[in-house]
Amino acid sequence: MTKADRPIGVFDSGVGGLTVVRALMERLPFESIVYFGDTARVPYGIKSPDTIARYAAQLTRFLLAQDVKMLIVACNTMAAVAQEVVRTLAGPNVPVLDVIEAGARAAVAATRNATVGVIGTPTTINSNTYALRIHALRGDVRVHSQACALFVPLVEEGWLDHPVTRLTAEEYLKPVLAEGVDTLVLGCTHYPLLKPVLADIAGPQVRIVDSAVTTAEQAARVLDGAEGLRAGAGSVPRHRFYVTDVPLRFQTIAERFLGRALPEVVRVDVPE
Amino acid sequence: MTKADRPIGVFDSGVGGLTVVRALMERLPFESIVYFGDTARVPYGIKSPDTIARYAAQLTRFLLAQDVKMLIVACNTMAAVAQEVVRTLAGPNVPVLDVIEAGARAAVAATRNATVGVIGTPTTINSNTYALRIHALRGDVRVHSQACALFVPLVEEGWLDHPVTRLTAEEYLKPVLAEGVDTLVLGCTHYPLLKPVLADIAGPQVRIVDSAVTTAEQAARVLDGAEGLRAGAGSVPRHRFYVTDVPLRFQTIAERFLGRALPEVVRVDVPE
Repeated sequence: MTKADRPIGVFDSGVGGLTVVRALMERLPFESIVYFGDTARVPYGIKSPDTIARYAAQLTRFLLAQDVKMLIVACNTMAAVAQEVVRTLAGPNVPVLDVIEAGARAAVAATRNATVGVIGTPTTINSNTYALRIHALRGDVRVHSQACALFVPLVEEGWLDHPVTRLTAEEYLKPVLAEGVDTLVLGCTHYPLLKPVLADIAGPQVRIVDSAVTTAEQAARVLDGAEGLRAGAGSVPRHRFYVTDVPLRFQTIAERFLGRALPEVVRVDVPE
Repeated sequence: MTKADRPIGVFDSGVGGLTVVRALMERLPFESIVYFGDTARVPYGIKSPDTIARYAAQLTRFLLAQDVKMLIVACNTMAAVAQEVVRTLAGPNVPVLDVIEAGARAAVAATRNATVGVIGTPTTINSNTYALRIHALRGDVRVHSQACALFVPLVEEGWLDHPVTRLTAEEYLKPVLAEGVDTLVLGCTHYPLLKPVLADIAGPQVRIVDSAVTTAEQAARVLDGAEGLRAGAGSVPRHRFYVTDVPLRFQTIAERFLGRALPEVVRVDVPE
């Protein structure tokens, strides 16, 4: 198998990273993809950084064994606290992208008044990684962050357009919007499913940065630069999905994230 | 150490079982207690029955190694799908109680119109265990169940008396109350913290069964019957708390459940 034919590896703590797979399938339709979701141990957002780093290393080793040509950390929590362990394991020949870096770049490109809001899980927000990455790109941008612990459960309950979700979003966004942000980063791969409600509350003057879409854009740029894009003509890409558990309502929830029917899913044991 | 001096073992997937510890400390103040919460892998309510049974066996072995005189499954999800594996490991000399059995007994004792509502996590409700246990006690009771996936995240966010929580509870309880239940079982150890809101929505004609309190009552009866109650005079009981992870805001959340200051917590690795 040539380098270009090898799959892109995408991993997440659960099903949220399927929004990144969806964006990749739309932006890079000829690429093969291997997805690994640690559904037995989801959610990571309420675990300690040490535990998250240990789990991230296990997921990385699993995907490297699948001979991936690129690794995408499609989980903000792991991107926030476990980036170094993933890069070290991947080595110099497998580029590592993550949703936080992609979101930070898009936010800096989008803002006109240098005032950016970031919403995410408690662990992502407490890590302050978005502010650090945004400041590394442009030092004068003010970042206003808000942890939104209830958004993941609301998305998984399917209450995407529900009065409870609207009321919850109003409460979480109020302090961020009061700071006059003109750009709002969805710092969790679950949040693209809430984009209509969030955009409605934020109003038309606020640009929403969907880090699933921006990550797919960055993957296309990096692979193109390294001549790693797969030639499309005459061959069908393979999309494989591995999870560590198949919980209740998995198919329904996963298809909501992927935006299409889910092919066969293989359950594997949690790697040690 | 005499049999009576050995501790009561209580386990849960996370911190919710601390509501059972709180009830035990109030009902049986002379008893020593060992608590084990699998905070690294919480929540169990969204995992598959096979995975839950495997984890329950690990937690049981850990507590048996602490020489407990009784095991209390303070997690509705494990009580629903992993009861047999726990009883088999405990053997004939260590009685096993669980929150579902205690809640079922209390519901049957409380109802006057033989119409009982049960609320819990999706896994607990889908297992249908409450209905099975209630029917084993009294066959003519009609049980109306409702999965309430958002209650655990709302409690952990601390939104105990919040418009979002009230709106969510109204939505979940509406179909159950429409069936004319006169008794409502809180089938999850997180829910006692929502009792004021739930009682308010249910109205004064509905009795709320708090399975933490009813489990402590049953523990007192079983130990008394087996002459296993610890003599109080002259010795202070020991309360030990083990968890598999110490996540963000752990102390705050745990103390909300325990209703008092939390003594030292020891982090141990997830047992395999």
